[in-house]
Amino acid sequence: MPRQFPKLSISDVDEQVRLLAEKVFAKVLREEDSKDALSLFSVPEDCPIGQNEAKERELQKELAEQQSVETAKRKKSFKMIRSQSLSLQMPAQEWKAPSVSPNLSPATPVVAVTLQPVQVTDFQRVTISGDYCAGVTVDDYEQAAKSLVKALLIREKYCRLAYHRFPRTTAQYLCSMQDEKWKIEDEVLPDFHPPPKDLEDPYNLNDAPGNLDYVVKMKGGILFVYDNKEMMELNEPRSLPYPDLETYIVDLSHFLALIAHGPTKTYCHRRLNFLESKFGLHEMLNEMSELKELKSNPHRDFYNVRKVNSIDSAFCVNRFVQITFNAFQKLVELQKPVSRSSLHYALPINFVEVSRELEESKYQYTEPRLSIYGRSPDEWPNLAKWFIKHKIFSPHVRWMIQVPRIYDIFRSKNILPCFGKMLENIFLPLFEATINPLDHKELNLFLKYVTGFDSVDDESKHSDHMFSDKSPNPDIWTSEKNPPYSYYLYYMYANIMVLNNLRKERGMSTFLFRPHCGEAGSITHLVSAFLIADNISHGLLLKKSPVLQYLYYLAQIPIAMSPLSNNSLFLEYSKNPLREFLHKGLKVSLSTDDPMQFHYTKEALMEEYAIAAQVWKLSTCDLCEIARNSVQQSGLSDKEKQKFLGVNYWKDGPEGNDIRKTNVAQIRMAFRCETLCNELSFLFDAMKSEEISALSK
Amino acid sequence: MPRQFPKLSISDVDEQVRLLAEKVFAKVLREEDSKDALSLFSVPEDCPIGQNEAKERELQKELAEQQSVETAKRKKSFKMIRSQSLSLQMPAQEWKAPSVSPNLSPATPVVAVTLQPVQVTDFQRVTISGDYCAGVTVDDYEQAAKSLVKALLIREKYCRLAYHRFPRTTAQYLCSMQDEKWKIEDEVLPDFHPPPKDLEDPYNLNDAPGNLDYVVKMKGGILFVYDNKEMMELNEPRSLPYPDLETYIVDLSHFLALIAHGPTKTYCHRRLNFLESKFGLHEMLNEMSELKELKSNPHRDFYNVRKVNSIDSAFCVNRFVQITFNAFQKLVELQKPVSRSSLHYALPINFVEVSRELEESKYQYTEPRLSIYGRSPDEWPNLAKWFIKHKIFSPHVRWMIQVPRIYDIFRSKNILPCFGKMLENIFLPLFEATINPLDHKELNLFLKYVTGFDSVDDESKHSDHMFSDKSPNPDIWTSEKNPPYSYYLYYMYANIMVLNNLRKERGMSTFLFRPHCGEAGSITHLVSAFLIADNISHGLLLKKSPVLQYLYYLAQIPIAMSPLSNNSLFLEYSKNPLREFLHKGLKVSLSTDDPMQFHYTKEALMEEYAIAAQVWKLSTCDLCEIARNSVQQSGLSDKEKQKFLGVNYWKDGPEGNDIRKTNVAQIRMAFRCETLCNELSFLFDAMKSEEISALSK
Repeated sequence: MPRQFPKLSISDVDEQVRLLAEKVFAKVLREEDSKDALSLFSVPEDCPIGQNEAKERELQKELAEQQSVETAKRKKSFKMIRSQSLSLQMPAQEWKAPSVSPNLSPATPVVAVTLQPVQVTDFQRVTISGDYCAGVTVDDYEQAAKSLVKALLIREKYCRLAYHRFPRTTAQYLCSMQDEKWKIEDEVLPDFHPPPKDLEDPYNLNDAPGNLDYVVKMKGGILFVYDNKEMMELNEPRSLPYPDLETYIVDLSHFLALIAHGPTKTYCHRRLNFLESKFGLHEMLNEMSELKELKSNPHRDFYNVRKVNSIDSAFCVNRFVQITFNAFQKLVELQKPVSRSSLHYALPINFVEVSRELEESKYQYTEPRLSIYGRSPDEWPNLAKWFIKHKIFSPHVRWMIQVPRIYDIFRSKNILPCFGKMLENIFLPLFEATINPLDHKELNLFLKYVTGFDSVDDESKHSDHMFSDKSPNPDIWTSEKNPPYSYYLYYMYANIMVLNNLRKERGMSTFLFRPHCGEAGSITHLVSAFLIADNISHGLLLKKSPVLQYLYYLAQIPIAMSPLSNNSLFLEYSKNPLREFLHKGLKVSLSTDDPMQFHYTKEALMEEYAIAAQVWKLSTCDLCEIARNSVQQSGLSDKEKQKFLGVNYWKDGPEGNDIRKTNVAQIRMAFRCETLCNELSFLFDAMKSEEISALSK
Repeated sequence: MPRQFPKLSISDVDEQVRLLAEKVFAKVLREEDSKDALSLFSVPEDCPIGQNEAKERELQKELAEQQSVETAKRKKSFKMIRSQSLSLQMPAQEWKAPSVSPNLSPATPVVAVTLQPVQVTDFQRVTISGDYCAGVTVDDYEQAAKSLVKALLIREKYCRLAYHRFPRTTAQYLCSMQDEKWKIEDEVLPDFHPPPKDLEDPYNLNDAPGNLDYVVKMKGGILFVYDNKEMMELNEPRSLPYPDLETYIVDLSHFLALIAHGPTKTYCHRRLNFLESKFGLHEMLNEMSELKELKSNPHRDFYNVRKVNSIDSAFCVNRFVQITFNAFQKLVELQKPVSRSSLHYALPINFVEVSRELEESKYQYTEPRLSIYGRSPDEWPNLAKWFIKHKIFSPHVRWMIQVPRIYDIFRSKNILPCFGKMLENIFLPLFEATINPLDHKELNLFLKYVTGFDSVDDESKHSDHMFSDKSPNPDIWTSEKNPPYSYYLYYMYANIMVLNNLRKERGMSTFLFRPHCGEAGSITHLVSAFLIADNISHGLLLKKSPVLQYLYYLAQIPIAMSPLSNNSLFLEYSKNPLREFLHKGLKVSLSTDDPMQFHYTKEALMEEYAIAAQVWKLSTCDLCEIARNSVQQSGLSDKEKQKFLGVNYWKDGPEGNDIRKTNVAQIRMAFRCETLCNELSFLFDAMKSEEISALSK
C-alpha cells in the first residue's frame, strides 16, 4: 500500500476557521490561567440560568425556522430521508403481519376511533418492537392480562351503575376484547347542573318540579324506592339498580386475589417502569417541540389556564377571625360534630370572603367540602337554609359533601341507635328532596350546587372487623365499634348509586363519590375505591402496590394530590409520588388540603403549583396538564368544561384538547393517548391470542 | 336506560379465588396489627436480596418455558399479534418511502453489511420515529452533521496512516457518504507479533532478517528514511508517509473550531442524552433476555472470560521489598530519570513475580509500561538486554513503552541540547533495529513483545506555549521550558507513524500510540488524542465536552479507565463517568493504574471490577462487555483475540461476538451495533439531503 501523507496548506483554510481556531487556542491558554479551562467546551449542566438561556435561544431559532418556507422544505426532505433510513436499519420482521389480519378486524375500529389521522401530531415517537412483552413468561403474561381485564370490567360495571366516569379509550378496548361494538350512545356520564346565567337568580326557588309520590324505605343500609305504599308492602321496589352485597363481595374477592398474584405484580411493575422511562425519553426528544407549541399559543400561559382546587374542609379556618363571621356562628354550632378535633371535619366558614377572592382571580375554581354527619335528618335542610340565607353561591365554587367516619362517637354518646340510622340521616333527605322537590325547595336548590360526596377521617385508624357478606348489615350494626373503611365506602356508594339513578330519571343532576383514599392505612382502601369511587384524593399508597397503580392508570382514575399537606402530615415532600405518577400517565391534579394550615401565601393553590414546579422541575406543559386534569375531574358542568378545555373535552388524545384554552401541547396529548392505547393493546393481544393460535394451526 | 344490578352468588365463585381472597383479607388484618400492611402487595424495591430472588425465580421460569414446544408456539403467536397491534397503533407515516429509494441505494450496502439477517437477534428494540432529529433546527443539524463527519474523516486519515484502528461500521458509513464503495482489502489494521508456540524459545535471536542498508536522519523532529546516503544528500526520502506539520495544524484548526461551535455542542449533547436513556430502556426491556442468554451459555461466566489489564508503570513498586530484587537493581538505577517523584514514571520492577501470578490466574493478561526517557540512545539496548537476561517474557504479558514528558528536567541538567535529541534517542534505535535487525538482535527480539507507546505525566501541569505551525521545531526547541502536551503527542505520533510504515514494509509488527489523556488539564489534550491516538487511558474529561464525547463514541475509541486510581487522585469514585460512558456505548475497559498503590487485594484487576460492579450495580453482561473491550483494545495478537473473543472478533455486532468465549449477550451486541448505525445514519441523512431535495423538486 503506497500511501503518502496528503498535505494541506494553511493558506487554503477558510479564513474564518483559522481565526476561530486561533481564538479557541488563545482562550484555552487564558482559561488555563484562570482555572476555568472547560467553560468553552462544556455544557452548563449545573447552572439553571445557563440552561434556561440556552433553551430560550434554541427555541427562538426554532420559532424563526418555522417561518421559513425554504427551511420547511428541507425539514420535510430530512424527515423523508429519515423514515427511509429507519426502515433500512430495522432488521426484517420475523413475523409477517398479513397472516393475522383477518382475526384482528375487531381491533381496527378501536384504533380508528382513538387515533384519527387528522389528529396525528408530528413528534418523535418511541416504539418498542420485537417481542410481546419484556421479561414475562407467556403464562404469566396471559394470566396477568386476563386478571387486569377482569378488574377493569368490574370497575366499568360499578361506574356505569352510578353515573361515574370511565375513560372512553379503555372502554373501547374492553368492548373489542369481548367482540362487542362500542357505541357512543351507551356511554354513561355524570350530570352537573350548569351555573345560572348572568341575569338568572341563583337562589330562585320557583322551578322545583312536582311530587312523584314515591315511597322510600331503608333496608339493610340501602334506601329502596317504591312507586307507592302498596308496592312497598308487596316488597316490589321501582326498577332501579339496587346493589347487592354478595355480588360486591364476590367482585372484591376477585380483586383481592388479583393484587396478591405474583406474576400480575411483576407484570404491572414492569409496565410501570416502562411507562416512566418512556416518558423520560419522550420528554428528552420532544420537550422543545412541546415548548414550541406552547410559545406559538397566543394569550395563554400557565397563569391563565383554568385550575380547580378540590380543597378540603378546613378551608379558611385560620382567617375567620379577620372578617364578619356572625353569619356563620350558627353554622359553626350546627356543624360541630360532638367535640373532637380532626383535620378532616373542621368547620366550613368564611366562604363568602374566599369566593370573592376567587372571582377576582378569574382562573381558579374550588370545590370546598361541607360536612354532613348523619346525626339527624335536620342537617340537610339547615345547611340549605344557611346557604340561601347568607347567599353563599359563587360561580367559582362547586360544593362537596364530606361525611366523617365517626359513627362510633355518635353511638357512644347514644345519639344514634345503629349505623343504618346514620346512613338514613345522610341519604333519606336527599331521596325525599328528589321525589318531592316542591316540599323541599331549599334543599332542591342547594343540591344543584352540590356535585359529590367525600368520605373523610384519618385512614390510619385501624378496624379489626373484616368486611364480608357475613358482616352485620347497617340496620343491626349497633356496636359502639366503628365499621371499617370498606364498609363505610360500600354503603355510601350504594345509596349514591340508587339516588343518582332516581335523579337521572327526573333529569336532575347526579353526584360523584370522591373519597379521601390512600393517604395512610391499609392498601385495601384503594381496592374499595377502585371499584366504587369516581375519583380519589391523595392516593399516596398506590406507590406501594404496582397492580393497583397500574389499574388506576389503565382506568385513568383522577387523583387529587396535596403534597404540601402530605409533607406536614404523612410524607416528606420530595418523596411524594406526584411527579412519578404524572410521568407514568396517571391522571393527577394538585389541590390544597387545609390551605390555611399548610401554606404561606394567600394564593394557596398557586403556591402548591409553584412548589411542585420548583422541587420537581415541572415544565409549563406539565403544569398545564395537571391543571387540565383538575378541571376534567371536577364537578364543573359540561358547559363550563367545554368553555375551559374545549368543546370536545370528553374525547381522549389531541382531539379532546383545545390548546388555545388548556395550553397543553397536542404532542403531550398524543403521547398520553398513544401510550395508553399501547398498554391496552397488550391486554387486547392476550385476549385475542387463543383465537389466533387456533387459526394458525 | 333500564339498568339493573347484575347479581352474582358467592357459591358460584371459584373456590380457589374465595380462599385466596379470604387469606388476603385475613392477612391484611394480621398485618395491620403487625404494622406491615404493605408487604403483601408491594415490590421489594429497597431489598436487594428480595430483588435478586425474584429475578432468579423469573429466570428459572423463563428457562423452563424455553423447553416447552407448546409455549414456544404461543410465544410465536403473541409476537405475531403484537407486530400487528403495533402497526395498527402507529399513525400513518406522513412521508412515504418509495419516492426516495433511488437516491438511497448507496446506503443499502452499508446496512446490509452491518446487519445481516442471519445475525438478527430477537429482542425488544427501541425505535424513534417521526422526526429527523430532536429539538435541533435544520440548519444546526446540517452544520453539526457536516462538522462531525469532517472530524471523523480526519481521524480516519490519521488512523490509516499509522496502522491504528478505525471501526468498520463507521468507515462504511463514511464511504457511503462520499459515494465510495467500501472494500475490505482497503481496511488497515495493526500487526502484533503472535506469542511463540509451546516449544518455541521466546528468546530465540536467530531469526533476525538482514540489513536493508537504509539511512535515517532526523529533520524537524521527525525521522526520515533514505534508500542510501546519496538519496539522503539529494534530500529524496523513501516513499513513506511523512507527516506535515502545516497539514496537522490545519486539521487541528478545523477541530478546535468544531468543538467550540454552539449548535454542534447542542446536537452532540442531545444525542448523548438520548443514547443514555435508550440504553436504560433497552436494559429495562431486555435485561432478562440478556441474562437468559448468559445462563444458557455453559462453562463461561465473568470469572473465566479473558480480561486485559492495561496497567500503569508503578506496577508492583510496593512489593519489591518482599522478593528477589537484585536482578532488577541495575534496571532500577538505569530507569531512574534524574531524581523526581511522579506517579507516572515510577519504576518497573518485579515483573517476573507478577507474571507468574498472572499465569496462575489463566484469564488475566497485562500490558505493563516500561519507561524510555530519551536521555540517551543506550536506553533501548539496555532494556532489551535486561529483558532477555532475566527472562522477563510471559505469554500473559505484552509490553508498552511509556515516555514521560520530562524534557525540561533533562534540559535543565544539560543532559539534552534540544527536544529533537530526546526524540532521536527514543526513536532512532527503533528505526535502526528495524532496518538492520541482524546488528540489533536483542532489541529486534524485544520489540516483538512491545505493542505500543504511552505518553505520561501529570496532565494538569500547564504550558503557556501555543502549538501552531509557527512553533519552533524540535531541532531548535532548546528552551528549558517543557513543550505542551499537544506538541509531545504530535511528534511521538509522527515518528511512530513513519516507523510503522517502515516495519510494515518488512512484515514486522507495528506499534499503537496509546497516551494517557483526559485525566486532568486542558480538554484540548483529548482533541490531540482524537486525531492521532489509537486509544487512550482515562478520558475523564470527555465528561465535560459533549462534542468530543460523541466523537469518541462514533469513532469507538477505546478508553481504559481506572476509577480506583482516579478516586485517589482526581475524582470521587461515584462521580467517575465510567458507568455513564458504558451505558452510552463508548468503548470503555477497566484497568488498574498503579495497582499496588490503590488496591487492597492481591488481585487488583478483579478488585477494580468488583468495586465497579458493586458501586454501579453492573450486570454480568456489563462486566463481560467491559472485559471484551479490554481484550479488543489490547496489543494481543490476532491469533489470541480469535481464541479469546471468537474468530470474527474484528466484525461489529453479534457477528463479531462468540458468546461461548466472551459471555457477552448477542442482544447486547446487536443493540450496540444497531444503535451506532442509527447515530451514523443521522449524519448520513444530512450528507444525502441535498441530493434528495434536488430530486424532490
